[in-house]
Amino acid sequence: MAVIDINADLGEGFGIWELGDDIALLDVLTSANVACGFHAGDPLIMRRVCAAAVERGVTIGAQVSYRDLAGFGRREMDVAAPELTAEILYQLAALDGIARAEGGRVAYVKPHGALYNRVARDPVQAQAVVDAIRTYDPSLPLLTLPGSAVHDVAEGLTVVSECFADRAYTPTGTLLSRREPGAVIHDEGTVVSRAVQMAVDGTVVAVDGAKVALKARSICVHGDTPGAAVLARAVRSALSDAGVMLEPFA
Amino acid sequence: MAVIDINADLGEGFGIWELGDDIALLDVLTSANVACGFHAGDPLIMRRVCAAAVERGVTIGAQVSYRDLAGFGRREMDVAAPELTAEILYQLAALDGIARAEGGRVAYVKPHGALYNRVARDPVQAQAVVDAIRTYDPSLPLLTLPGSAVHDVAEGLTVVSECFADRAYTPTGTLLSRREPGAVIHDEGTVVSRAVQMAVDGTVVAVDGAKVALKARSICVHGDTPGAAVLARAVRSALSDAGVMLEPFA
Amino acid sequence: MAVIDINADLGEGFGIWELGDDIALLDVLTSANVACGFHAGDPLIMRRVCAAAVERGVTIGAQVSYRDLAGFGRREMDVAAPELTAEILYQLAALDGIARAEGGRVAYVKPHGALYNRVARDPVQAQAVVDAIRTYDPSLPLLTLPGSAVHDVAEGLTVVSECFADRAYTPTGTLLSRREPGAVIHDEGTVVSRAVQMAVDGTVVAVDGAKVALKARSICVHGDTPGAAVLARAVRSALSDAGVMLEPFA
Amino acid sequence: MAVIDINADLGEGFGIWELGDDIALLDVLTSANVACGFHAGDPLIMRRVCAAAVERGVTIGAQVSYRDLAGFGRREMDVAAPELTAEILYQLAALDGIARAEGGRVAYVKPHGALYNRVARDPVQAQAVVDAIRTYDPSLPLLTLPGSAVHDVAEGLTVVSECFADRAYTPTGTLLSRREPGAVIHDEGTVVSRAVQMAVDGTVVAVDGAKVALKARSICVHGDTPGAAVLARAVRSALSDAGVMLEPFA
Repeated sequence: MAVIDINADLGEGFGIWELGDDIALLDVLTSANVACGFHAGDPLIMRRVCAAAVERGVTIGAQVSYRDLAGFGRREMDVAAPELTAEILYQLAALDGIARAEGGRVAYVKPHGALYNRVARDPVQAQAVVDAIRTYDPSLPLLTLPGSAVHDVAEGLTVVSECFADRAYTPTGTLLSRREPGAVIHDEGTVVSRAVQMAVDGTVVAVDGAKVALKARSICVHGDTPGAAVLARAVRSALSDAGVMLEPFA
Repeated sequence: MAVIDINADLGEGFGIWELGDDIALLDVLTSANVACGFHAGDPLIMRRVCAAAVERGVTIGAQVSYRDLAGFGRREMDVAAPELTAEILYQLAALDGIARAEGGRVAYVKPHGALYNRVARDPVQAQAVVDAIRTYDPSLPLLTLPGSAVHDVAEGLTVVSECFADRAYTPTGTLLSRREPGAVIHDEGTVVSRAVQMAVDGTVVAVDGAKVALKARSICVHGDTPGAAVLARAVRSALSDAGVMLEPFA
Repeated sequence: MAVIDINADLGEGFGIWELGDDIALLDVLTSANVACGFHAGDPLIMRRVCAAAVERGVTIGAQVSYRDLAGFGRREMDVAAPELTAEILYQLAALDGIARAEGGRVAYVKPHGALYNRVARDPVQAQAVVDAIRTYDPSLPLLTLPGSAVHDVAEGLTVVSECFADRAYTPTGTLLSRREPGAVIHDEGTVVSRAVQMAVDGTVVAVDGAKVALKARSICVHGDTPGAAVLARAVRSALSDAGVMLEPFA
Repeated sequence: MAVIDINADLGEGFGIWELGDDIALLDVLTSANVACGFHAGDPLIMRRVCAAAVERGVTIGAQVSYRDLAGFGRREMDVAAPELTAEILYQLAALDGIARAEGGRVAYVKPHGALYNRVARDPVQAQAVVDAIRTYDPSLPLLTLPGSAVHDVAEGLTVVSECFADRAYTPTGTLLSRREPGAVIHDEGTVVSRAVQMAVDGTVVAVDGAKVALKARSICVHGDTPGAAVLARAVRSALSDAGVMLEPFA
């Protein structure tokens, strides 16, 4: 029987500003990637999201990022490794302390935005992120892309692969760049059926029509678009209907 | 036999900017108030200071602050209690995680600058700080002024009083405002002899010449002035020579 | 014939985060208080709002603030006068340069949030704001409350008074504190008829039922609530229907 | 007769933190690159540096940067062109307003740190910077490296080349990377004689011993190192003694 996790980014407001419907998403997810204050999130938002996640039994992950509120962590930065490691450690510890204050704990780590993409191909920054986790708690899994450079440097850590229900894939099983047309799939029915195929068959239909293997323990749904919670709910229902067991990986 | 702790603020640089001579001070202190990134300090500085403190057996405290890098945390802010509590929790957890990564841990909390002064007279913000500590770890002492409003709201917490060797005191035992002439004492000999009197006799000579009782378990020396480490060393030597035992309170 | 201006706060997003519907409001306002990056607003948002305001012939004002993104400029801060003056000058010049790049210019200044309230009663900060305007361009009017401390220190500057259509007033003509019940009026019909009375009669009905004089050259409508543009449009229509001429003050 | 300008970075403190000795340098420079608040500098520092520059007749330039206080603007960032243009415009306008308040004005623009290096090879970001200057005031020269990509996109702008007295050069006339040994020259006599050769002969001795042409209208001296002002003064004296006329380019 297939087992899958559903994760999304949460707590991505800042101060007066809100983004996404955290509470609606929490009713659908099994894992919540909670922003730690560097690209989004502030201490009060972090507390509220952690409290709501604990109440619903949703697993909490630290969504660590470059220090870039103005760019929402979406701009690659040439941060030196010792500094990046310290910054990840800081975010991880801050969220974990807050999660524990609410009766939970950080159970995994997922890099955000540009850092997520950078560590997929840059072994230096990948190592810096891995070092932070290993230093803080080597039992914490790292959630990332299959094929990410993180896998090569993460000896001793658990690395968990995720797939994206609403993103197009190349024939080699990598994400089609967002700059390409069709990179993001908006049709609900298509997104839902792709999610089921990913979870049940471990495959995806690439942009050239080929069926490609895609082993993933978690499916990422986007949380910052209007209708995100509705789409996530549809994905979850379809997975359940297809007999897939929904279970956090951590 | 008199027992006293010597504390000072450390890790108060940010990015390229430095402030004070942390390493020289660490050889003199028994307790280091480490900045947590809100008024000063960045994750890399925090790591380095924690590592150096652990190496020298100096106790680490969280020097928590308003979020105000531009004002170095010296400007009072009307932060609502739930937000202030969450911000303190965030800083405390971040530093503790970093300290643990270096083999230490946060052993006490000291509010910084304007927050230190505000909680001395504002029970709402005092309560907000106390709530954060109680939530994170109620065994952590809070270092503050004798007579601070913190004492009134800190039920269940250990509150530790400190005195200032280089500050003038009023006849009622409170600090003379920095706006008054003579509020800060610069003469090394005077500072040193006052420190000894504070530790040995538990008294201080106020601005009107009266001897005033001043019970304190820790003496604060300033770290951000040129010659700070030299002065701190002179204070420490004189205390030792007077038979005072130097010992952290936490 | 009565003449009035309608102003609202615009450009109060930051990075990925949005707040209010700037474009819808610009079709209703005669004056736009554009955030300058210290409590909200970033350079790109500032450009876009200025371009849209110029296109529609809406007058641009600099909505200057404390440096406080996390608190949206709503927390009073004890900023020293020289620093506050420099910060206001910085914001004013930045927005004016951007407005000029889009074919407009800054035509007035309105302090935001906690700074607005602080300068209404604190002559030191009021003077600091006035000094910045006087230094930058003494021909720029300052938009504020009737009775604000700004009036006392603004010699040589034009000070323009504004009223709030959706706020309750005390019998002495001051705003009822937001902490009091009924401080903000939500009923559209009430807001609209109060706006007309303010513009036509120069009076408002206070919380005790008394009619109070309220001389104002501008009416402020809130921009950050859902339905803000709809309400603003209703106010504008009613003012036009009542024969009030809508005209910017600057 | 040879004519040269001497420029250095100034105003690079932030809040409580200081960097370099601005006043000592202002007595030596002909042009001051004043930080605009994005990598360093705050409004009060900007005012003070501008006032001191105006008093001494030193030309003021806007040292524009990525938004990165934590990294001192030394980390490359993938900022999208429209955002970068707006950010440059914002900084330029803010400093110009402040300079004018002190009786001066911004007379040129020099990108800082990672942005300086990025625009030397990335035509997209180079264009974004050029667009900002052209929009604000197309008469402002842009100070950069000979061979920078800026030259290719700056049609209509004046681009001024600078050289570095204390940096090693490759045989093709480009700067030796700071990662290479010997990239920065510390010996005062060597720095001074290279500066004279650059100004008088328009050449430099490259790392392989070859004499390479290096046309530059300005020499950059570093301001953030201990002894920077002393070195700058030695460079200036030697240039004067060699009959070189010291004159700002803008």
